Amino acid sequence: MRNLKIDPRRLWDEIHETGKIGATAKGGVKRLTLSDEDRRVRDWFRLRAEKLGCTVTVDGVGNMFALKAGKNKNRLPIAMGSHLDTQPTGGKFDGILGVHAGIEVLQTLADNDIQTDAPLLVINWTNEEGSRFSPAVMGSGAFVGAFSQAEVLAKTDRDGMSFGSALDSIGYRGAQPLGAMKMAAYFELHIEQGPYLEAEHKDVGVVTLVQGIRWFNGQCVGMDAHAGATPMHRRADALLGVARLADRLESIALAHAPHAVATMGVIDVKEASINVVPGLVNFTIDLRDPSDQVLDAMEAEIHKALDEIGARNGVTLTIDRFWKAAPLPFDPVCVDAVRQAAAKSGFTTRDCTSGASHDAAYMQSIVPSAMIFVPSKDGLSHNELEYSSLEDCGAGAQVLLDAVLLMDEAGH
Amino acid sequence: MRNLKIDPRRLWDEIHETGKIGATAKGGVKRLTLSDEDRRVRDWFRLRAEKLGCTVTVDGVGNMFALKAGKNKNRLPIAMGSHLDTQPTGGKFDGILGVHAGIEVLQTLADNDIQTDAPLLVINWTNEEGSRFSPAVMGSGAFVGAFSQAEVLAKTDRDGMSFGSALDSIGYRGAQPLGAMKMAAYFELHIEQGPYLEAEHKDVGVVTLVQGIRWFNGQCVGMDAHAGATPMHRRADALLGVARLADRLESIALAHAPHAVATMGVIDVKEASINVVPGLVNFTIDLRDPSDQVLDAMEAEIHKALDEIGARNGVTLTIDRFWKAAPLPFDPVCVDAVRQAAAKSGFTTRDCTSGASHDAAYMQSIVPSAMIFVPSKDGLSHNELEYSSLEDCGAGAQVLLDAVLLMDEAGH
Repeated sequence: MRNLKIDPRRLWDEIHETGKIGATAKGGVKRLTLSDEDRRVRDWFRLRAEKLGCTVTVDGVGNMFALKAGKNKNRLPIAMGSHLDTQPTGGKFDGILGVHAGIEVLQTLADNDIQTDAPLLVINWTNEEGSRFSPAVMGSGAFVGAFSQAEVLAKTDRDGMSFGSALDSIGYRGAQPLGAMKMAAYFELHIEQGPYLEAEHKDVGVVTLVQGIRWFNGQCVGMDAHAGATPMHRRADALLGVARLADRLESIALAHAPHAVATMGVIDVKEASINVVPGLVNFTIDLRDPSDQVLDAMEAEIHKALDEIGARNGVTLTIDRFWKAAPLPFDPVCVDAVRQAAAKSGFTTRDCTSGASHDAAYMQSIVPSAMIFVPSKDGLSHNELEYSSLEDCGAGAQVLLDAVLLMDEAGH
Repeated sequence: MRNLKIDPRRLWDEIHETGKIGATAKGGVKRLTLSDEDRRVRDWFRLRAEKLGCTVTVDGVGNMFALKAGKNKNRLPIAMGSHLDTQPTGGKFDGILGVHAGIEVLQTLADNDIQTDAPLLVINWTNEEGSRFSPAVMGSGAFVGAFSQAEVLAKTDRDGMSFGSALDSIGYRGAQPLGAMKMAAYFELHIEQGPYLEAEHKDVGVVTLVQGIRWFNGQCVGMDAHAGATPMHRRADALLGVARLADRLESIALAHAPHAVATMGVIDVKEASINVVPGLVNFTIDLRDPSDQVLDAMEAEIHKALDEIGARNGVTLTIDRFWKAAPLPFDPVCVDAVRQAAAKSGFTTRDCTSGASHDAAYMQSIVPSAMIFVPSKDGLSHNELEYSSLEDCGAGAQVLLDAVLLMDEAGH
């Protein structure tokens, strides 16, 4: 295996160069999918990849593929990728690191005049975050057939603008059919978005599994009433019902330690007013665990809680599971390539499960895939304070390079 | 005291006549203040009062005064009134009953060829509900000097239209200076908007006091984080902090039974997303009790809860009291007139505290005032299902007539 070294400083500088596109006052990035900021970072990506001699193609939902030819025209490309969109108050690293690291891998190879045997591919997936158009991980989901193109194009944001119109408005609806770009393997470098690597002083996470995820929309129906004239014992307070559920959710997750998490991210009072007892409240629940059995148990416990709280508070609580992703092990060969690549540089590692959904999770359903994690300061992400150091980002990119080279040399 | 009988059926029919103006499909009324529906009901009120021989004047914020001359030109008028505007999904009785009952009192006197010694006044206050232009109880508040005319005229609705423009657009900006109409006493008949009269099978409520009210804006600051990658023990979940506060608020109110009420009406997650642990949540609190001491105690207990929840959840909870109205006893002479009037007709009564703020509460600050309640079916109001029976409405109007006559005869 060659002894190539990526340039951590160059990688860092380029991350901070695109970080200016949508930069927030607190040092984060707001680059909602298909916004003008997204267009500008896509333009940057296209130009940067073309300068490396890549051919950049775009598919029907805006996924971007930068293809660098290999020596062997019969091999499928080995892919690297992630996403350049962010949450409304996102950071500079989530997703972004993985795309930039792919570019850095190609740049390192170019600097050393090395052409791999297999073609290489760097991918920027559309709408991983899902904060403007729901659900998340939409671009890679559509790529693997989890959503139809028509379905994706018809999604609307809060202002009623369709995904298709937004895509056209930034000029990134491509001609390439979804799923047409074939590949031999897919690697995604990503920040951990959790606390374990930092806490245990590990350089790199070898991600063996993506947690199962279940998403629910919920509703609590009580009776809206005058806040001044309705005694406590006569109320059917929908907000209080949902508040009690939030409390129970925490208990349910804690009862399934250490991996289970449960989150109420949205709570929305219909016709909210300071002097009206809420009669209708909508909310969401996000459940994750590496085990489907645990998720089944948590879901059953939530339903029990809905009934108990409903009976006690005189409200009706219901939930609707609208999305479910089973726990997903990554490809053993790809995972092993990551492990070997980390060992080669002497990095300390830890096996991780990914709590977040990632483009790599969808990719694993059609292509052998794996992920590399690097530490997140204080475990933070989806936050303007999200931070991974220059050294951590560099270590991740180095492992990415070596994992790709291992796959290339092994003929995968 | 004369033995005059108001006509419950006529009152009922007229309530249902104006109820067509802004009638909703579910049997309620949507007559937002200064809307075209408000103009139409004001036109009805003006014509109806003029037919009774009243002189109708309008002040600078649209409050309407229908003055019926008495025998004695040196006495100040005895006033009756309430409001004809409604909530967006309001009922047919809240406020409306009090204005119609004033008209019915004048009609009964006219039918019996009786001219009172003092002049009589029926008032329709502008914007009691506060749902289009905040705050509520604005017309009578401006009348007593709680708000300046300029301040009221500058208020804007959600579409950015000013109160002044809306007032002009319906032609109800009058020339009469605010507060210029002097009166000897003010009586307001209103639906209870609570459950006690119905539950205890009482005909009429003698309202002795308006509860004290305290309004707070609150904020919970935690740390937004990835819902999938952040373990439960590493979270500073702002929504969970506010949820626990909602639960504590109920306990605090229940500990000060039977009158105390505490309501969280608004909860607003900043940048809410299904897969983000909320980092910032705003909320409101509405506290009411007849005793300032109880309100002080509740407020102290809430502050204690903020600290405890904050320490336990790793969040910072703060509240800001932005409005406070002390408990307000009504005028003993006026209250006694209501009590005597009810006794004269043999109605069963119950002393009530008003949980809601009313025009009468502002009026009591400058004029001896009292209120009469009639039962609300299921305690409902601010709701299209709001209902008080023909008999209940009639009983209330009869008490209003007799209370006014008592004051007239006593020379007040």
